[in-house]
Order: sequence, then structure tokens, then C-alpha cells
Amino acid sequence: MKILIIGATGTIGKAVSETLELAQHDLISAGRNDTDYYVDITSPNSIKAMYQNVGRVDAVISVAGATHFGSLAELTPEKNEISIDSKLKGQVNLVLLGLNHVNDFGSFTLTTGVIVDDPIIGGVSAAMASGAVRAFVQSSAQEMPRGIRINEVSPNVLKESIEKYGPFFPGFEPVAADRVAQAYRKSVEGGQTGRTYKVY
Amino acid sequence: MKILIIGATGTIGKAVSETLELAQHDLISAGRNDTDYYVDITSPNSIKAMYQNVGRVDAVISVAGATHFGSLAELTPEKNEISIDSKLKGQVNLVLLGLNHVNDFGSFTLTTGVIVDDPIIGGVSAAMASGAVRAFVQSSAQEMPRGIRINEVSPNVLKESIEKYGPFFPGFEPVAADRVAQAYRKSVEGGQTGRTYKVY
Repeated sequence: MKILIIGATGTIGKAVSETLELAQHDLISAGRNDTDYYVDITSPNSIKAMYQNVGRVDAVISVAGATHFGSLAELTPEKNEISIDSKLKGQVNLVLLGLNHVNDFGSFTLTTGVIVDDPIIGGVSAAMASGAVRAFVQSSAQEMPRGIRINEVSPNVLKESIEKYGPFFPGFEPVAADRVAQAYRKSVEGGQTGRTYKVY
Repeated sequence: MKILIIGATGTIGKAVSETLELAQHDLISAGRNDTDYYVDITSPNSIKAMYQNVGRVDAVISVAGATHFGSLAELTPEKNEISIDSKLKGQVNLVLLGLNHVNDFGSFTLTTGVIVDDPIIGGVSAAMASGAVRAFVQSSAQEMPRGIRINEVSPNVLKESIEKYGPFFPGFEPVAADRVAQAYRKSVEGGQTGRTYKVY
């Protein structure tokens, strides 16, 4: 399958790319650096331009989306916009603007996170954005045209990111990125839709 | 208790106001028309001005928040902003900007909806916004200062709104607004936090 991966150079993005390449898929990477196509997902025009340049694909995977981490006491409407613009609207707009660029029976796979189910201190803004994406996936699945499917992967904190994010996730059991990558493969190659694949 | 109700003139707002007045609370109404204080929740500055004018309260109830209803095929990033600006950011910002205006052991109660759990056709944007609010409530509860609590009420379609919204909710069992109002009373007078009160 021809698969577009947005956020391909991130920790999950690299693992997903390796897994899907091993499975003989034809990958196209997008992101802000070192990818086949440039895209800034906070800009609808940038997303439109990416799809115009890439052409039709069988699957779109988003492992992109910035979030703001920090305490509720210091969370302002402005800081909260970081998560809304990127993790939330960025991913949702990849779907809204990508519907006509995905082949019949193709798929979208978005990314949320464990903290929707298991809240952490400092994760309010990120959890809010992921909660929106989860509800969007579950609702939009039933309205997808031409047999297109949509799912989301909700990973735990990664073993590979534990130095950076570990302090936010006390007592969480980190998972390996290559295990998380399997959930994206299940979404792309399987037949399910409207699902949350929890890797924890 | 001194209770600020935003969206007091809506169908749920009226029922909540009646229920809380019967329970001898001191109510302050806010909204865009026919209320004690004006507020446009899509504007952080308007929210700040409202809180400055109202002063300290024991509880804040939001039964406000516009959403876009319509098919996924016709959902654009721009139409989706209606739900993001109002139902999502409006309610979240009522909390972020209201924290210092709520007394110790006070509470916030926000509003989501049944379609997060039970998606309907045409409800993608509204469900997305409610999913964000639900995750925000569940995450922020553990970081609230001074014993302040936060919950959300998730109502089914109302009996009182069935003519307007019924076609979107085939097979749903509508609930009476006065039953929904009890959930807000539970949130305000009870001791729970981080909870979703589902009235369906």
C-alpha cells in the first residue's frame, strides 16, 4: 500500500516506518524536517498543499502533534492553544482535508495517548487534545465515504522517551516503540474502524 | 451557595436555575442576553471581565457552548472552529480564567453530551468538542487548588428540545431537563470530583 506518514521523523514515526517498510509498503514521509514532503499541520493551507503534492494514497498515518505540558495553575488559554492548534486541529484537519486524497477502502490512523485514560499531573492540555481526537475518530468512523476507515492509537509513554518524559509518568510501565508500531500496522492492514488501539 | 451559571437562559440553564433556586442557592446568571452579566465565552477578555464584575463565587456552572451540526462530508476546518471556539475553548477557559474567582472547596461543572459515548450522524464536530471537555475535566480534577472540584454533566437529548434536535437522535430516549438539572445539583452540593454524570 501507498502510505503517507506525517511526523515520520519522531520516535514513534521512525518505528512505524520501519515496521511498515518491513511489511513491503510504499512509504511517503511528511513533516517539518528531513521528510519527502514538508507540512506544518497547524496550517490548513500547508496540509492542502501537501495533499496536492503527494497525490492519492491508500493510508494516512498521523504520528504528529505538539502539546503543552505544565501545571494547571500555570495553564493559560494561550499555552493551551499549542495543543489545540497542533495535536487537536492538526490531526483533525489531516482527515477533513485528506478525505478526497485517500483511495476507496483506505484508512486514517491518528495518535492520542494513555493520559486520556490515566491522567498525569501536568498533562491537562495534552489530555484535552487527545480526548477531542478520540471522540472525533469514534464519531467520524460512521460517516466515512467509500469504505474509508479511521482509528487511533493511544500509546503509553515510550521506553525510548523515558529520559525526557519519565518524570511526568511515575509508575507507568513504558512500552517499546516497535510494539506501538504494530498497532498502526493493525489499523492500516486490518478491517476495523472507529477503534482505539491502546498500547498499555 | 453563591452560584454563577453561564448559559442560564438555555433549556438546560433554565431547569438548572429552577432546581438550584428551590434548593435555596443564590444564583447569578451570565450569557449573551437577559442575564445578570454579559459574557461571550469565545472571548477570553469577555470571560475575564465577567469574573471581575461578578466577584467570588462558590460554584461555576457552564451550560453554554455552541457546536456545529452537519455531515462529515461537509465539515470544513472553518465550520469545526465553531465547536472549538465555543463548546471547547469557551468552557475550558471558564475554568482556566475562573480558578482565582472560586472560593475554597468550590466547584466547576461543565457540560458535554451523550454523543461522546453514542455517536450520531452529523455530530462529529460537537462530539469532538465534548470529548475534549471530558478529558479536560478528568485530568484537571487532580490539579485543582484549594479543594476546588470539577465535574461534567453529559445529558441525552432533551424532551424539551426534541422538535429541534430529534431528527439527529433516532432511537435515543429523550430525558427531561429537570432530571438533567439534578446532575448539576449533585456536582455542586456533593463531594465528588473528576466525574462524568451521564443522564441517559
